[in-house]
Amino acid sequence: MYVTAAKPAKCLNGSVDQIAPAFAYCQRHSARFLAELKQFIRFPSVSTQPRHADDLKRCAAWLADHLLHIGLQRVSVIPTARHPIVYAEWRAAPQQPTVLIYGHYDVQPPEPMNEWKTPPFEPTLIGDNLFGRGASDDKGQMFVHVKAMESYLRSTGELPVNVLCLFEGEEEIGSPNLGFFLRRYCHELTADIAVISDMPMLAPHRPAITESMRGALSLELDVRNPERALHSGLYGGAIHNPLQAVCEIISAFHDKSGRVRIPGFYDSVRDRDPRERAFMQANGPGDAEFLRNAGARVGWGEPGFTAYERTTIRPALTVNGIIGGYQGIGPKAVIADRAVAKLDFRLVPDQDPDGIEYLFRRYIEYITPATVRALVYKLGSARPVAIERQLPAMRAVCCAYRSVFGVTPVFLRSGGTIPVIALFQDILGLDTLLMGFALPDDGMHAPNEQFHLPNFFNGISTSIHFLTEIADQSTKLSVESNHNFEFATPAVLSD
Amino acid sequence: MYVTAAKPAKCLNGSVDQIAPAFAYCQRHSARFLAELKQFIRFPSVSTQPRHADDLKRCAAWLADHLLHIGLQRVSVIPTARHPIVYAEWRAAPQQPTVLIYGHYDVQPPEPMNEWKTPPFEPTLIGDNLFGRGASDDKGQMFVHVKAMESYLRSTGELPVNVLCLFEGEEEIGSPNLGFFLRRYCHELTADIAVISDMPMLAPHRPAITESMRGALSLELDVRNPERALHSGLYGGAIHNPLQAVCEIISAFHDKSGRVRIPGFYDSVRDRDPRERAFMQANGPGDAEFLRNAGARVGWGEPGFTAYERTTIRPALTVNGIIGGYQGIGPKAVIADRAVAKLDFRLVPDQDPDGIEYLFRRYIEYITPATVRALVYKLGSARPVAIERQLPAMRAVCCAYRSVFGVTPVFLRSGGTIPVIALFQDILGLDTLLMGFALPDDGMHAPNEQFHLPNFFNGISTSIHFLTEIADQSTKLSVESNHNFEFATPAVLSD
Repeated sequence: MYVTAAKPAKCLNGSVDQIAPAFAYCQRHSARFLAELKQFIRFPSVSTQPRHADDLKRCAAWLADHLLHIGLQRVSVIPTARHPIVYAEWRAAPQQPTVLIYGHYDVQPPEPMNEWKTPPFEPTLIGDNLFGRGASDDKGQMFVHVKAMESYLRSTGELPVNVLCLFEGEEEIGSPNLGFFLRRYCHELTADIAVISDMPMLAPHRPAITESMRGALSLELDVRNPERALHSGLYGGAIHNPLQAVCEIISAFHDKSGRVRIPGFYDSVRDRDPRERAFMQANGPGDAEFLRNAGARVGWGEPGFTAYERTTIRPALTVNGIIGGYQGIGPKAVIADRAVAKLDFRLVPDQDPDGIEYLFRRYIEYITPATVRALVYKLGSARPVAIERQLPAMRAVCCAYRSVFGVTPVFLRSGGTIPVIALFQDILGLDTLLMGFALPDDGMHAPNEQFHLPNFFNGISTSIHFLTEIADQSTKLSVESNHNFEFATPAVLSD
Repeated sequence: MYVTAAKPAKCLNGSVDQIAPAFAYCQRHSARFLAELKQFIRFPSVSTQPRHADDLKRCAAWLADHLLHIGLQRVSVIPTARHPIVYAEWRAAPQQPTVLIYGHYDVQPPEPMNEWKTPPFEPTLIGDNLFGRGASDDKGQMFVHVKAMESYLRSTGELPVNVLCLFEGEEEIGSPNLGFFLRRYCHELTADIAVISDMPMLAPHRPAITESMRGALSLELDVRNPERALHSGLYGGAIHNPLQAVCEIISAFHDKSGRVRIPGFYDSVRDRDPRERAFMQANGPGDAEFLRNAGARVGWGEPGFTAYERTTIRPALTVNGIIGGYQGIGPKAVIADRAVAKLDFRLVPDQDPDGIEYLFRRYIEYITPATVRALVYKLGSARPVAIERQLPAMRAVCCAYRSVFGVTPVFLRSGGTIPVIALFQDILGLDTLLMGFALPDDGMHAPNEQFHLPNFFNGISTSIHFLTEIADQSTKLSVESNHNFEFATPAVLSD
């Protein structure tokens, strides 16, 4: 019901005959596909919370079973120091390129639980949207490719290209063990291109190719003062409360205009070409659209930039949580002995996470009053990445999107971070295509996360098209060295 | 084992014969007294948390049974809109004064649980200290009087004075229903003096009479921005994060020196007579002792005042908790839609809680940026109180302390708040004697709360002495109108 009738696109490499059985299979089995996605979402695979470690194991085992069942080979569940990696491959097209499909089966914590309208791990269909933690990030979007492969394998018995599947369980905690895995198996993971679907499009009918993602640096700031919690009546007024102190420290992170005040923070931020900013203005979301998607009345942030620019080509520092003092109902007259703030830097080229961490630690030392102690812990980091618009495989992505959605996708920058992209570049020398099928208001990381089901099925069609397009394209496509190309829309590529 | 051998004090009204049987009884039954105190502490009677409502009911029923068992009369459990009041009396001394003994059987929340070395509701004796939530605040201290009454009633069959017991279950939430109760039963609660033991002494061998307590105003500050939580990668840098905003607002509560910046906040604070400040300096804790008790390295607060002054004759504003964003283990890349801060004002004469609330609301409106919304909710309030040093009954308290501890108690000011003192003054026209038996490092309101057992048994002895001393004293004692008396130590009173 949700599958868009795919028009034979003029850029199609393979014949319509080749692709038709996969489409027919997908349409015939769409109800089962949805049921299986629901099964997948039911696992509370919250990677950051130790109590869910077994749920991640069970989810990985289920996923591996599923990949075996649809016809993939060498399916394995590979343990890491924390949550396992699920690997599978199909290598029966020796003359064709090899695509590495990456996804993650772990999810963000569902908290705060009371803000969910439906149980986070009981996927619920309301209208066209499937609600549940992980529905779009990333179970739904990775399942798009799984179901595209199944449609091919179960209808024609083969895939048009070689595929390696790498589905990890630690993306939401910064992929701490993926680097070891990639280094250990780098010779077996040789591929031509990687594909990740873990980001939004512009709108249901406005497909986009993500061309850059911000880097990240997760830190914990731990402010302590008295050795033990104190009665705020008996001691209030004479002890520097760590909760007040953490507020005073955090309030020194930004100036009134919204610029980060850490000395040196912007020093290595790359100035953007006015043509590029014009391109972003023409193709990206405007401020009004951005605020509508965010559910916010008014914008905020670094002066001189649009909301889209502030979240993509400019770095940011956000506070993700403050833990300290009494958290329950009603009053409690207490001065806590400690306050912890969770901090999230998003970094842009050419900011280096280690360098920013150093600047931050130096700034904290400088601004922390002598009345309290402040400690900084690193939770994870990833460097910013940019994908070349000129990649030969871009043409296949454009054609695939255009065939399904009827419009040419635009190049979009994302403020998010997928640590593995930098790891693929650094360890495997592999470029990554970022094919998002989520929507900006899908609530990734928020309560009531959802996946727009038409995008799930359009995604499967797009993936089927993409796998067809990419076949043989490496011999057909050459990159033109055209300077203007840098700011062209993908239409230039596919026409 | 813990009972100090009481010396017959020269100020004793009653004969040694009269008091000896009660002491003997107490010494004989000290092990059982301790076992019963443990039973009392085992009830998790956390008044602020709705899930403990039944525990408060069970605790009240147990306490009422206990009071009946020791020989009190008209024992009743009286329901209120929330947690019941336990009432009992003994009125068989028609020629004698009537003492109203107040205590509270509800306790502070034990959270954070992971900081307790022993289970908060499984009282554990380590050395001379009994650990458990409520051990000192206030189950242990109110039990002092219960066991003193039992010692008298079970050994001599009577009390030297009339006694009304009023034990409530809502002190830790600001006694919201006690006012209704006092107004409803004001004619039956006629008494000459009230006694409360719910505060610290100076040190194990330095008894003190509390002569003033600060008022309180509990507020919740609720800062909201986006309609729903957002991904801090996708939106970070372009949305005013409510957690950052609440920090910015809270950081505007104090200036760099530690003075509250709310305009008008200090306008009605009473300037203290230099003689009074000299008295405080001579009798109260010094800064070094204060910091040692607090477990803090360095002091903080309003310039020009000692720590003791900052927490007693000067008002304070503390942050008791901040709830917002991700509170779990590891990172979570989220911008919360809301941050809530729990705030605790402590007020001094002549600050009025309603007036301070008005000033605060006006200040919040002024400092809240247009990018977020801020709401303020009132959780409770109580006005500051002072007890006259010249009260006739003070002599009985002094003699009682001196008989047991061997030293004259000093007048001490407390930074804490017991809302009922103002209610007793306003509704019953009743003055209150504040006889503390806790210690400054007992961890009232903090994890690992404890009660120093020697103080439990010395407290019982002191209460036995007090009940003896107060008998007939109203006819024997007249108040001298001596101006110097205002800053005298209680020694002047008892000699």
